[in-house]
Amino acid sequence: MSREGGSPGQRTSGRVVASVGRLIDAVRLPSGAEEMTVRAHIEDLTKPPGSLGRLEDAACRLACILGDPPPPLEPRTVMVLAGDHGVVVQGVSAYPAEVTVQMCRNIAEGGAAVAVFARRAAAEVIIADLGVRTPVGHSGVIDRNVVRGTADLSVGPALSAGEVERAILAGAGLVRDFAPEARLVASGEMGIGNTTAATAVTAALLALPAARVVGPGTGLDTPGVARKSEVVEAALARLPADPSPIGVLAEVGGAELAGLVGVVLEAAGRGIPVVLDGFISTAAALAAVRLAPNAKEYLFASHRSSEPGHTLQLAALDLKPLLDLRLRLGEGSGAALAIPLLDAAAAMLREMATFSSAGVSGRTGP
Amino acid sequence: MSREGGSPGQRTSGRVVASVGRLIDAVRLPSGAEEMTVRAHIEDLTKPPGSLGRLEDAACRLACILGDPPPPLEPRTVMVLAGDHGVVVQGVSAYPAEVTVQMCRNIAEGGAAVAVFARRAAAEVIIADLGVRTPVGHSGVIDRNVVRGTADLSVGPALSAGEVERAILAGAGLVRDFAPEARLVASGEMGIGNTTAATAVTAALLALPAARVVGPGTGLDTPGVARKSEVVEAALARLPADPSPIGVLAEVGGAELAGLVGVVLEAAGRGIPVVLDGFISTAAALAAVRLAPNAKEYLFASHRSSEPGHTLQLAALDLKPLLDLRLRLGEGSGAALAIPLLDAAAAMLREMATFSSAGVSGRTGP
Repeated sequence: MSREGGSPGQRTSGRVVASVGRLIDAVRLPSGAEEMTVRAHIEDLTKPPGSLGRLEDAACRLACILGDPPPPLEPRTVMVLAGDHGVVVQGVSAYPAEVTVQMCRNIAEGGAAVAVFARRAAAEVIIADLGVRTPVGHSGVIDRNVVRGTADLSVGPALSAGEVERAILAGAGLVRDFAPEARLVASGEMGIGNTTAATAVTAALLALPAARVVGPGTGLDTPGVARKSEVVEAALARLPADPSPIGVLAEVGGAELAGLVGVVLEAAGRGIPVVLDGFISTAAALAAVRLAPNAKEYLFASHRSSEPGHTLQLAALDLKPLLDLRLRLGEGSGAALAIPLLDAAAAMLREMATFSSAGVSGRTGP
Repeated sequence: MSREGGSPGQRTSGRVVASVGRLIDAVRLPSGAEEMTVRAHIEDLTKPPGSLGRLEDAACRLACILGDPPPPLEPRTVMVLAGDHGVVVQGVSAYPAEVTVQMCRNIAEGGAAVAVFARRAAAEVIIADLGVRTPVGHSGVIDRNVVRGTADLSVGPALSAGEVERAILAGAGLVRDFAPEARLVASGEMGIGNTTAATAVTAALLALPAARVVGPGTGLDTPGVARKSEVVEAALARLPADPSPIGVLAEVGGAELAGLVGVVLEAAGRGIPVVLDGFISTAAALAAVRLAPNAKEYLFASHRSSEPGHTLQLAALDLKPLLDLRLRLGEGSGAALAIPLLDAAAAMLREMATFSSAGVSGRTGP
């Protein structure tokens, strides 16, 4: 179904996808270990079968990617990508746009939540400007700017096709440059207004009405949520039926969202597990998996955000989160908090005794 | 309401409570910081209000106990108390009784789940025999045995009043001897059959029928659960109405459960936060709080066990767990997994920037 004038969603489905094709093609199914072999290993550990619940599932998936037992998940890097959103002029955020650049500096200087939690988890934080509207001007913030803020998605395409492509490649480049040997990458973002873009991207990719996906973001009141829903619904109306992921990112996305698509594709292509933060990061992961279905096998959900659309995203990706703390901060804060749980899952396979090695009797009762 | 012959539940309500009175009296309300002051500090951190969800509540409670900001939660100790249960002859466990002593050795040697997770969390593990039926004979297992396994609670009192008292004092002694300066104590246990005892203790303290509380434990099948429910219901019928906590522990409890009561009382008395593991640990915490209501302020719930009665216990203690991983292992494994989250909560108050210090604009929008 094509649309008059050639929206980015149409123009890009050929050319742009082809230019990120190498990233997509590099994402193979995990080959670290066979799931059945790992499951047998887990069954032999000194504990009742299944008694470590979701941690066993995480351990199994890590082993399938990294081998059984998985090595320590080090080094690990939290990738925080930042961008601004023209749609903030529509009153869709509780915070002013200048907070994006202020928080980039706060993350670089170690005072933001993601910086504190990553430090506790011995993870490096990379904070990069993908689409901030003004130069950040801080030596700790990596300049990979592809656009000085998106256009207002409520009145037209947020980005051009070329900008989406460059942002995806920039995100991939961050993994290549700063985490090529990582055993774990965590996703995060900073961008006032980006829950609106992520809501639109999610609704478009899951073919849902805006009202099903929309939520309060960082703290909108009820009229604010209604306005956001209207803004998103109007923008979605411009998309063709069954739009391409790249087309969606151009029409209603953002530079940091596209950048996170690149982070997921490059990490998965290198066989690196990716732990997702909340609603924004998972919106990007949805787009990445639409482009490269194998990428799904590398994704881990850190937490269940209190943003209602996050549950829809997790269901679409068949992911079960490790934490349910009612977080709704973003930045990668939830992903950083989940790293020690993934460490524990990997350590379980490396260090737990088996029934035979520890001389422990097995199950006999009813 | 008194019962013919003087069951432990009757005899002990005076004498035994008096002998642990010093432990109880030492548990004062936290005095580290005022909740309102801590809440104001949290509101000033660079994040939307409330956006760190339950982690903010944990941070606030830690600060009320330890001061604002809380120091690093080090050193920290996982206290794993072990005991055997005569009721296993009734077929209430999927595992043979000898697993208790085997797992004590496995914990001491570092191969059990709690040992692996505690090591990742830089926590010391203390594994102590409070009521194992045969001598453990391992230098890494601390001998504080007060009884060689309980009597079968389905036919009579599990313990004498004196045994309960000695077990409580032994648990308190473990904190005094091995964690006097701890900034965090985690509770754990090992004892084949002890979900049956914990079910009975919980039902008695919450005045609920056994069928409301009973669950599959480490993996009972449906007829096994029904048998356990009958066993517990019959034992509960021997208790007077409104029994004393010590009386409950004697009639239907266990040495490791009573020991964990002592751990909670001694830690709370020293102003040390206690992170609870699952169903068994929380049953002991219920008894401790019944003895010393102030102790509640020092308790943190690590996870929501898949044992159904755990949710009833958490509600009674007004605790919200940090993890929901479908764990049902015990040992202290869930408590150890939650330690990094409490670390992050404390670090949030120590290390996060404030809006003014970081030059970040506050909320302006709808």
